[in-house]
Formats: sequence, C-alpha cells, structure tokens
Amino acid sequence: MAYINNEIKILSPATVANVSCGFDVLGFCLDNVGDEMILRKTEEKGIRITKIEGYNLPFEAELNVAGVSALALIKDAKPECGFEIEIYKKIKPGSGIGSSSASAAGSVWAINELLGKPYNTTQLTAFAMKGEALASGSEHADNLAPVLFGGFTLVKSLSPLQILEIPTPFELYATIIHPEIEIKTSESRAILPKEIPLKNAITQWANVGSLVHAMHTNDYNLLGQSLNDVIVEPYRSKLIPHFNAVKTESLKTGALGVGISGSGPSIFALSKGKKTAESVAEAMKNVYSKTDINFNTYVSKINTQGIKILN
Amino acid sequence: MAYINNEIKILSPATVANVSCGFDVLGFCLDNVGDEMILRKTEEKGIRITKIEGYNLPFEAELNVAGVSALALIKDAKPECGFEIEIYKKIKPGSGIGSSSASAAGSVWAINELLGKPYNTTQLTAFAMKGEALASGSEHADNLAPVLFGGFTLVKSLSPLQILEIPTPFELYATIIHPEIEIKTSESRAILPKEIPLKNAITQWANVGSLVHAMHTNDYNLLGQSLNDVIVEPYRSKLIPHFNAVKTESLKTGALGVGISGSGPSIFALSKGKKTAESVAEAMKNVYSKTDINFNTYVSKINTQGIKILN
Repeated sequence: MAYINNEIKILSPATVANVSCGFDVLGFCLDNVGDEMILRKTEEKGIRITKIEGYNLPFEAELNVAGVSALALIKDAKPECGFEIEIYKKIKPGSGIGSSSASAAGSVWAINELLGKPYNTTQLTAFAMKGEALASGSEHADNLAPVLFGGFTLVKSLSPLQILEIPTPFELYATIIHPEIEIKTSESRAILPKEIPLKNAITQWANVGSLVHAMHTNDYNLLGQSLNDVIVEPYRSKLIPHFNAVKTESLKTGALGVGISGSGPSIFALSKGKKTAESVAEAMKNVYSKTDINFNTYVSKINTQGIKILN
Repeated sequence: MAYINNEIKILSPATVANVSCGFDVLGFCLDNVGDEMILRKTEEKGIRITKIEGYNLPFEAELNVAGVSALALIKDAKPECGFEIEIYKKIKPGSGIGSSSASAAGSVWAINELLGKPYNTTQLTAFAMKGEALASGSEHADNLAPVLFGGFTLVKSLSPLQILEIPTPFELYATIIHPEIEIKTSESRAILPKEIPLKNAITQWANVGSLVHAMHTNDYNLLGQSLNDVIVEPYRSKLIPHFNAVKTESLKTGALGVGISGSGPSIFALSKGKKTAESVAEAMKNVYSKTDINFNTYVSKINTQGIKILN
C-alpha cells in the first residue's frame, strides 16, 4: 500500500452528459472547470461538512450530495476514522454541467484515496449515485462516470452498473456557454414524452453507434455527423432562449456538433483543435451579448483523467 | 484498368440484419451460405434474366430484385452493352437471412466488376436498394450493406446513404437455424409498435454503443452483454415457435448472444470459436427435432469479404 496522507485537495471537474445522441448514457469530462474540495481524516467517525464557499448549500451531511455519497461509502467501508469535507463550489448548481455530480463524485474519490483505494472506479460511481439521487430524485451515472473515469464514458447499464471508457480523439475540444437562466429540473423532465416514435429511436441508435465508431477511428467528421439528437433536443431546446442561434453560429464557425449539456441551460460544442473551439466560444458570446442574459463560456480540452489532486 | 472479363461467377452471401440491439441499422455477413450468380456481357443492351434455379422467381427484370437493381445501375452507367443474369438461388426467400439482398446486391456488384468498377461500394448499395424495395416495399440497407462491404456494418443514415464498417473480432462465429415456417413480412411489420417507451429506447442505444465498442476492443463478453433487444424481439419472437427455448439452450451452450435474424423466422447466435458455434447448432437442432417443424442450420465464420468470385 502506498503512503497514505491524512488530507487531500482535489479538483472535481464539470462534465457534459447526453452529448446529443446519447441521452442518459453518454458523457464527457471537462478540464480546469470544477469544484475544489479538501477532505481530511478525523478521529471522530462519520462525515462532517466544515466549509462551503461559492454557493449556499446545506452543511448537514445527509442533505448534501457530497455528504450523502460519502456516507454511502463509509457505511460500506466501516473505516476506523471519520472525514471532514471542505467544498469550494465553483460549478453553479443547475447550470447543466454536472454540478451535483462533481460534489458527489469528489467526496467518494477523495475518501477512497485517503483509505488506500479499497474500491474500484465503478464501485465509487455506485456510491456517488446515492448523492446524485439526492439532487435529481433518481440514480443516474451519465455525469458521474466522466468525473470518475475521465474522457468519454458510456453507461452501458445501471443494474448491474457497467461503464465503458470510449477513447477520445486527441485534438477534441469542448466549448461551453452557460446562459444564466433557471430551468427547473422538474420542467426539463416533464417536457419529455414518455413514448417516442420507433423511427426516431432508430435514427438515435444509429448515431450512438456511429459516435462510438468515430471515437475509435479518430474520425472527426463522422463524430460531428453523429452529434444529432432527434429525441430530446426538439423539446428541451425550447427552454433555452437563443439555442438555435447559438447552434447555427457555432456550426458555421466550424464546430463539429452542438447540443444541450445535460438538461441545460448550458450548451456545448465539440471542435477539432483549440483554435476552432475558441472561435466557437466567440460565436456563442456574440449571440448572447445581444440579449440581456448573463453568461459564462469555457473552452476545454477533453479531460481524460477526471478528478485531479491539487498541491 | 485491370483486364476485364465478359463473364463472372459469384457467391452472393446470406446476411443477418438487426443483430438484436441494432434494429434497421446493424448487419453482418455469413460465409459459404449464399446464392451463385453468373453475369455475362451481351451485345444487346438491357438486362435479361436467362436462368433461375432453386426457387420460382420472375424472369422479367423489372419484377425480379436482381433485375431491378441491375436496371438502376445501367440507367446511371449507360453502358454500350447489356447483361444476362443466371441465378442459382440457394437462400430460400422469406427465410430471414437476406435472400432478396443477396440477389439485389449480387447483380450490381458483378456488373460493376464487368464494367471495370466505375462505382464505389456505397453507390452499389444505393442501386441494390432499388431491388430490395421491390421485395420489401421500402428501401433498406441493413442486409445489403454486409453483402457488399462484408463483416459487420452499421447503416448510419439512408439519406445521405452512409455505411460504417465495424471491425469484426477474429474468432467470432455465427450459428443460424432456419425453421421452415412462413412469416409474412406484412405481419412481422404490423406487429411492431409505432411508438416505443423512451426508457426502452435508452436501453437499446446503450446496447448499440456498447456493441460497437465491444467490436473495436475484441471484448467478447461485452459483445454478448450488448446483444439484447428490448424493442422488437418481445413482439416478433411470438411469431417464431420455440424461439425462447432455442435462445435459452443456445446461451446455456455458450453462445454470446441469440436473436432473431432480420424479421425471422431464422434465429442467429454469435459465439467465440467454431467449436462453441457448432455446439450451439446442436442445441438449436435438439429444440426443433422435438417438433414437427423442418429446419436447416448453418455454422459460419463472419465473412469479412462479402461477395466472392467463384472459378
């Protein structure tokens, strides 16, 4: 066993779920956009959240996603110690880039490090799903998997939990724009139909297969052609003002594909090369600059590592 | 240009479409099961079908799938010659292993060879779709693509026609059982719902993505876990007596996965290694031997070449 520290500081990254065609199953990990967290072993058993900066979130462990996932882990691991958690929240809750997943995954990943890595990454995902469920009402892994595995992930099944790591073409960059509007999760769910035309489903699974093939073959054009969502985007894009303009302008600027990040309101684009990704960010900004909606943009390489240890 | 013969004899192979999770988009090609066809240049322009053995099919080119696809090609190519076609039909029409596709693809592939290959494989698929439409009422490519490209194929889209070649793990073998019952295409279509639960569609596209990933990574276990069809099989399997028994016994015997070939009644299994595929054939035979239904079985390596020239 490696030397075990009593304290660890991490960057738990933001993520993009769904990725156009892969509703509920695909996701990828962003670089340098994420929450900082410090976790510390304590003699007293249990989980205590001792500091939260950035956003107003509950300190009670059982009401905080990072706390709930940590509690799920220690319930199983039964360590002789406890843990305190400091959360420096940078990802705005409700922005659509995996804010709750970063918290839920960060705490279990860090505790696993402090305990000498008794769990594998799939097991950590299962613990983190308990925290995610607190935020979203049901257990999902499409944002958690890319936080914990890094890169592109496909949640093959939830029961048994099975996560696939899809290779990421080296020059792939993401551009994100987060328009500061509120979409209630309940609304973005309620707007989706329970039944969909078989014809559209066929289009969607052809695109999922094609996207996975494109990633394995470094085929950027095919990747772009696969980033189509005929199921969810037609509904949810209505909740995001100027979505179509952002999409059109980003594609014109050279983005391979554009879609809703998670359940929105953030919009993501994927591009080949940093330069194009930065031009896409400018194109996105231009759209929202003409409105009274505040926004943030990010340009990020795909983070193939996931959570990182900070000095 | 290579030396061009005036006559060519080919084996146009049988194929398995859908492949459990990939309804309407996935297909793979069988080896040594197929129709023999002889095509010959003639001075007289046009397409003439001069011989049909094996099954009773129309000689009029515009009523025969091989004729219709050939007519589509020469309408575009406008060659100075015509062609006569001899068809030695071995794949029983309506068996569910791509009988019409073998005919439709065989004629255009052979004519393309005789003309010095003016068309690429995707273009040939488009011509063959005209013949396929005669047989099935609508243009499909999920059986045609594996005949013409060989191996595993994914029809990414029909318009524009875009076909992906998915790599095939080397030790993959197919077992087919064809129970000699008649399922009307109209019935096997009518039984499918026009709308499906979003929840099931998500399961299906996770499996398609997972299957493509498994093929790229030679992961036989994952391949087997991906061969699940929650959309079509629950309906169509009711039209195939003893389907569930065949599936259960084949899986017990070591098959990676089992499903309906095309719209049935043939059932396919995929296995790692010829020995297992042969044991699976025995298991399938055992099920139907106890009934009064006649059947044929085939064990076949995945044919990564597609159509072959015979001496």
